Amino acid sequence: MVKIGLIGCGTVGQGVLRIIEKHRASIEKRVGAPVEIVKICDVKRKVMDQLPAKYKNSFCRDYREVLNDPEIDLVIELVGGTDFAREVVLEAFRQGKHVVTANKALLSQYWDEIFVQARKFGVLIYFEASVGGGIPVIQALNDGLAANKIESILGILNGTTNYILTKMSHEKMPFAKALRLARKLGFAERNPSLDIKGIDSRHKISILASIAFGSWIKPSEIYAEGIQKISLQDILYAEEEFGYAVKLLAIAKDDNGSIEIRVHPTMINKEHLLTSVNNQFNAIYIRGDAAGETMYYGQGAGQMPAASAVVSDVIDLSRNIFNKIAGTIPYVHYDPYKKIKIKNIAEVIVKYYIRFTTVDKPGVLSKISGILGKHHVSIEACLQKGQSGRRRVPIIMITHKAKEKDVMRALQEIDNLAISKSKTVYIRIEE
Amino acid sequence: MVKIGLIGCGTVGQGVLRIIEKHRASIEKRVGAPVEIVKICDVKRKVMDQLPAKYKNSFCRDYREVLNDPEIDLVIELVGGTDFAREVVLEAFRQGKHVVTANKALLSQYWDEIFVQARKFGVLIYFEASVGGGIPVIQALNDGLAANKIESILGILNGTTNYILTKMSHEKMPFAKALRLARKLGFAERNPSLDIKGIDSRHKISILASIAFGSWIKPSEIYAEGIQKISLQDILYAEEEFGYAVKLLAIAKDDNGSIEIRVHPTMINKEHLLTSVNNQFNAIYIRGDAAGETMYYGQGAGQMPAASAVVSDVIDLSRNIFNKIAGTIPYVHYDPYKKIKIKNIAEVIVKYYIRFTTVDKPGVLSKISGILGKHHVSIEACLQKGQSGRRRVPIIMITHKAKEKDVMRALQEIDNLAISKSKTVYIRIEE
Repeated sequence: MVKIGLIGCGTVGQGVLRIIEKHRASIEKRVGAPVEIVKICDVKRKVMDQLPAKYKNSFCRDYREVLNDPEIDLVIELVGGTDFAREVVLEAFRQGKHVVTANKALLSQYWDEIFVQARKFGVLIYFEASVGGGIPVIQALNDGLAANKIESILGILNGTTNYILTKMSHEKMPFAKALRLARKLGFAERNPSLDIKGIDSRHKISILASIAFGSWIKPSEIYAEGIQKISLQDILYAEEEFGYAVKLLAIAKDDNGSIEIRVHPTMINKEHLLTSVNNQFNAIYIRGDAAGETMYYGQGAGQMPAASAVVSDVIDLSRNIFNKIAGTIPYVHYDPYKKIKIKNIAEVIVKYYIRFTTVDKPGVLSKISGILGKHHVSIEACLQKGQSGRRRVPIIMITHKAKEKDVMRALQEIDNLAISKSKTVYIRIEE
Repeated sequence: MVKIGLIGCGTVGQGVLRIIEKHRASIEKRVGAPVEIVKICDVKRKVMDQLPAKYKNSFCRDYREVLNDPEIDLVIELVGGTDFAREVVLEAFRQGKHVVTANKALLSQYWDEIFVQARKFGVLIYFEASVGGGIPVIQALNDGLAANKIESILGILNGTTNYILTKMSHEKMPFAKALRLARKLGFAERNPSLDIKGIDSRHKISILASIAFGSWIKPSEIYAEGIQKISLQDILYAEEEFGYAVKLLAIAKDDNGSIEIRVHPTMINKEHLLTSVNNQFNAIYIRGDAAGETMYYGQGAGQMPAASAVVSDVIDLSRNIFNKIAGTIPYVHYDPYKKIKIKNIAEVIVKYYIRFTTVDKPGVLSKISGILGKHHVSIEACLQKGQSGRRRVPIIMITHKAKEKDVMRALQEIDNLAISKSKTVYIRIEE
């Protein structure tokens, strides 16, 4: 029998129990052995009252009861946060226990320590639920695409922001109203700033890229920009005038051994499949050198999708535990000594959507394009709509590919001109 | 070391060799041991000339040289067809060798025999490349969604037909011209009838459904209708008047233990993500009871995508072989004694798009709707465009959900009327 301890029995933990009870027969057939959750730990005593009767005697409030139980082979860590979770996971390793976690912040921030320690103690840590909820994308990267050198990953990794952007685009809803609606429907947390600012996506692309490129890419090395400054106006211009949709993309690319990695609102061509990924859904678009382009889509969050991913990890890991091979080979093929070069955001070369707000006077366009040209930024398309009688007019440009630092210098210079009436807006374009 | 024999070294086989040479280091790290292709067999002698120098001495033309080599642990079967391939696979099992195959016809037609024999000899057979080319969907069903009861699968499983339907829709190209273009670009075989008629999709949905529902669903039990009768006119009506796209879908659903499984041209709402799967791409949309809706997208065919899937199987299987656990648990969790009920197509209940061609006379519409009503088919929407001066006019209807056999009886009765000027066209709608 494979004996499991569950630490942190909130929404996802209770979903895990539900799945195991409901599908016990098929789960045990897949593992090849009985699987039992023998201890459940949560700091909140009221959790015990919500447990199915059979689990009430397994409840405890001190996580050390789980970690010190010599019969437990596998610990499911669902406490969230990083400090306490790190302690739990590292202590589980020391006790020779394998771990399943959904904790993206923990993994992305302590990747090296976690995998080095797991190796040291000959145990495994699985983490399918940490990225993309119920979408088996960690497994796809790790196993399904194992024959490939990964060339690029484009991810819609955050359901809250994708929901907001979808509402803005499809229903012409301003940002604040879309955010309120997301909150009301449970797609946004009470404090959604980690989502809105792209921090959640940064954790997730850190994990995906660290697997794909075989070396830890720290969240602090990843440029992240949120959607808080995206206006309805820019979304509508992008769609109606240029055929682009705006998505918060997490992007990681291998550019000849130098890794380009960034999170920001991005315009993508409406023909691209990612633009059809709407509402709270997530998707990860991966290009491999053999498989070509593949995409994985599904619910990026929620009790049952996350529990689905946790239980699929539990099944796979339990099978390895029962066969006594768990830990003989690391789950993630990653080299703590491999150093990869991260390209600075200033060096990134993309196309830009730029919206200037200027006075309506002759010569403005030539002034702006002159400054852009001086900084090696050339213009692919320009739109200046006559809005007679207005003192501020928008001028919208799509640039050819240009280097980020050149664009930033040009925009700074333009924003300092007297003709500029408010800070210029830019959104990067992904081809 | 894990020693491999390759039987059938055509396009995909040569792709497999390329990947193994290119990514040997990372593959061996994942396996935990060296991996070597020690024998390559093909009936065509000229294949030897195309092999990289290091493999020339490993070439043979008699497959028994591979199967009788006691050092070989794993056989990659890429010969295609069913009779000879079946012999190769069963003999490999008898010799205690594990198998990786891309052969969808073989698997769907001999599922029971193959898995019973594999179990008997304690070996495994992997087959990721048999469905969806480079998309790791077999793995997703088998492992990533292992915690789920699968409720439904909707698949665009054939690249040729999806390419043709995309060209018809996006470029208003008639069927015959789109087929010629597909041939020219290599997206259709010289004899594309297995693709066009839905037979290829039938093999593939047989495999997916047999895994998902844990019991062999024979191709002969699956209703299949191709795209050969789809006219440009119906595609344009569907899109422009009703907001539907037409796709060749393979559908499998668990309706309370009775399995509904069918392949046919299908109208789906343009909001559905599958309608954005275009050209030669494939996608599989799976609903599980915990994960909810997930989708897997990519190249359904082609040398390198298929080779990517074969090599990912080789890596996983080699790891199990090296750890001496390959065969302890079956790869597919399937019960040869489980009998599931397949719903007859006549009992299926869906909405229909129906196009009648009638004379332009008063009373026609009431006559048609009367007959439909008599057969319990009610109308949700109706479109009759005035086309003055024409002797034949189209009347288009979208029905509410109705039973297939009722619709067929009604259409037969209507087609027998003097007012009907040609056979009524119908396309099922998936909500």
